Amino acid sequence: MIYADNAATTRMSEKAIQTMTTLLEETWGNPSSLYEHGQKAKTVLENARAEIAAAIGADAREITFTSGGSEADNQAIRSAAEIGRAKGKMHIISTAFEHHAVLHTLERLKKEGFEITLLDVHENGLVVPSEVEAAIREDTCLVTIMYANNEIGTIQPIREIGEICRKKNVLFHTDAVQAIGHIPVSVIEDHIDLLSSSAHKFHGPKGVGFLYAKRGIRLTPLIEGGAQERGRRAGTENVPGIGAMAAALKESIEKMPENTAHLLRMRDRLIAGLSEIPHCALNGDAEKRLPGNVSFCFEGIEGESLLLMLDDMGIQASSGSACTSGSLDPSHVLLAIGRVHDVAHGSLRLSLGEDITEEQVDEIIRSVKEVVTSLRGFSPVWRDLTSGKKPFIL
Amino acid sequence: MIYADNAATTRMSEKAIQTMTTLLEETWGNPSSLYEHGQKAKTVLENARAEIAAAIGADAREITFTSGGSEADNQAIRSAAEIGRAKGKMHIISTAFEHHAVLHTLERLKKEGFEITLLDVHENGLVVPSEVEAAIREDTCLVTIMYANNEIGTIQPIREIGEICRKKNVLFHTDAVQAIGHIPVSVIEDHIDLLSSSAHKFHGPKGVGFLYAKRGIRLTPLIEGGAQERGRRAGTENVPGIGAMAAALKESIEKMPENTAHLLRMRDRLIAGLSEIPHCALNGDAEKRLPGNVSFCFEGIEGESLLLMLDDMGIQASSGSACTSGSLDPSHVLLAIGRVHDVAHGSLRLSLGEDITEEQVDEIIRSVKEVVTSLRGFSPVWRDLTSGKKPFIL
Repeated sequence: MIYADNAATTRMSEKAIQTMTTLLEETWGNPSSLYEHGQKAKTVLENARAEIAAAIGADAREITFTSGGSEADNQAIRSAAEIGRAKGKMHIISTAFEHHAVLHTLERLKKEGFEITLLDVHENGLVVPSEVEAAIREDTCLVTIMYANNEIGTIQPIREIGEICRKKNVLFHTDAVQAIGHIPVSVIEDHIDLLSSSAHKFHGPKGVGFLYAKRGIRLTPLIEGGAQERGRRAGTENVPGIGAMAAALKESIEKMPENTAHLLRMRDRLIAGLSEIPHCALNGDAEKRLPGNVSFCFEGIEGESLLLMLDDMGIQASSGSACTSGSLDPSHVLLAIGRVHDVAHGSLRLSLGEDITEEQVDEIIRSVKEVVTSLRGFSPVWRDLTSGKKPFIL
Repeated sequence: MIYADNAATTRMSEKAIQTMTTLLEETWGNPSSLYEHGQKAKTVLENARAEIAAAIGADAREITFTSGGSEADNQAIRSAAEIGRAKGKMHIISTAFEHHAVLHTLERLKKEGFEITLLDVHENGLVVPSEVEAAIREDTCLVTIMYANNEIGTIQPIREIGEICRKKNVLFHTDAVQAIGHIPVSVIEDHIDLLSSSAHKFHGPKGVGFLYAKRGIRLTPLIEGGAQERGRRAGTENVPGIGAMAAALKESIEKMPENTAHLLRMRDRLIAGLSEIPHCALNGDAEKRLPGNVSFCFEGIEGESLLLMLDDMGIQASSGSACTSGSLDPSHVLLAIGRVHDVAHGSLRLSLGEDITEEQVDEIIRSVKEVVTSLRGFSPVWRDLTSGKKPFIL
């Protein structure tokens, strides 16, 4: 099997599994308990917090553990909205191709009276910083723009956007779920106020993530109850999961230079190979994209059939986000970069892991070529296109 | 070490650890992914849902996985409140000794305009069903009463309360975090509409729980985003944690008759032994309490010193809830059953696990007697009491 869906989830690293298993066996105390066994769990928790903070240039007290990226996104945005509401600032800037954890939260806020501006991400899948600046108003309380897109992998000019927000005194949140552990992120250098992350995207466990909030930003708890996480998030802390997340992140960052070099070679080889297929197009900027992300649209086919046939050939990939699999609507991300419905339906995302080999990349290229040709062979849309009944778009 | 704080958290069972480790290693796919590896994870998820549903007499579609008991409590209550608000019914009935996940959510709803009635739990720590009935008004949208109290272990007359709520057509939620896996619970027989549970209280992992919602009750998502959990809870599902939770619950229920018989003997032996200490009192009803729960107040001492000295002797216990450890306020639960501040401060909760032995119980009794005597030896309060300056309460 060739697993090429690392943007959906990653395999836990051996180190992370080992850390987690040891903690499950040995450090199962409640970190709120005063006795030794509880305090040992508390130490694991606080060490993990310090390690994670250090990995993004933050202070330990700025890290709140959550159950994952979606929870962190929800809490970050709702907190910033509450801060804005208290000041009478009820305008939020985002983009049309954010993760649904962001977009759906914004939709709810809209119902509560907030005004939402969704910036264009253009054909290359990139936000233009000057357009962020131009959109900021007196009543803007938050700019929320993802670090790297989960479908097409484009990496936003976060530092420039951060600088603009800092200068304009507007809170800046970034959903960094696809970035953390994959590309260098510094909340200091990038001027980030709020950042969301999820462990299972960087070889950590599912069900755990973190929210960075710059000191002084009051977080509104989504989950109320006990005094855990300094009142920001109630519930007994998932110590084994958190410890494993810290171990996975440390490892990802240590191996990042080596992994990135390898992934860039593999990514570009894959892009070059797939580009040979007629009437296809790479989605998103070719340069400013995650080292492991390859996203294409193929005209005249259905992405779902492509995926199922690739699965039969032992290649696991996706059409877009796993979170919306099963939906018949085309990806909102692909629509946001201007793909028309028909083309957006024929999408394929291959998100490579660090252990991908050149042979596997070549196998993916061969298989995709074969499957696309085969699917086009019995596609009525393709027949219309080739017979000239319909014009080609790509 | 004698671990007597199972109400704070439990050690994961070998079965649960093994299930979890296997899933971490092998079934790490994203259950939303269409390919085989993702669908295997989906199968684990749905099997776990069916097992958990069966364990409480529910249908699989009535189970939503959460990150734990606090999240489930928050979501259950906020959902019922939204349903009530839409009908103009903004009155909620609860008790003064609920978990903070319930009480703090109710406080927030109060700020949003809801009226909250907190019922008396009396000296024995029990709600009187007729008082629930009397409190229900035309505009009552929810009754939320915990199944078993986390500090004093009293088991509420849930079935009678459920019958009343069903008759009066009012939603009934129960925080069953301390009950599930420890005493039999049937949502059908108990007429429960919403129920919260947490895996780490029944030898499952931390960071995972579930919310039962009777079919037809619309849950308001706390976490918005992807379409996971049929739109009720966004975020990639913690499949290994959920699988381990199901395994732990299955095991707890299978072993319940045997465990309960043993725990009742141990509990009552411990209560009898500690009752020999002068000027102490058992908290909560002696009969209608969890099989493993022992809770005492000792006059003239500080619970915190008692705990630390017991910890030195290898006995791990708590004064009340772990979630509020470190707080200087006396337990709201003990105040709710009428303990005055001074007495409430001298509390000790021993929550026994199934592997507790008679020898360990006797060692706890000896140690507590020794520590209480020793602490009273240098307590100015105790001097005032024994010299007649202050009257004894217990």
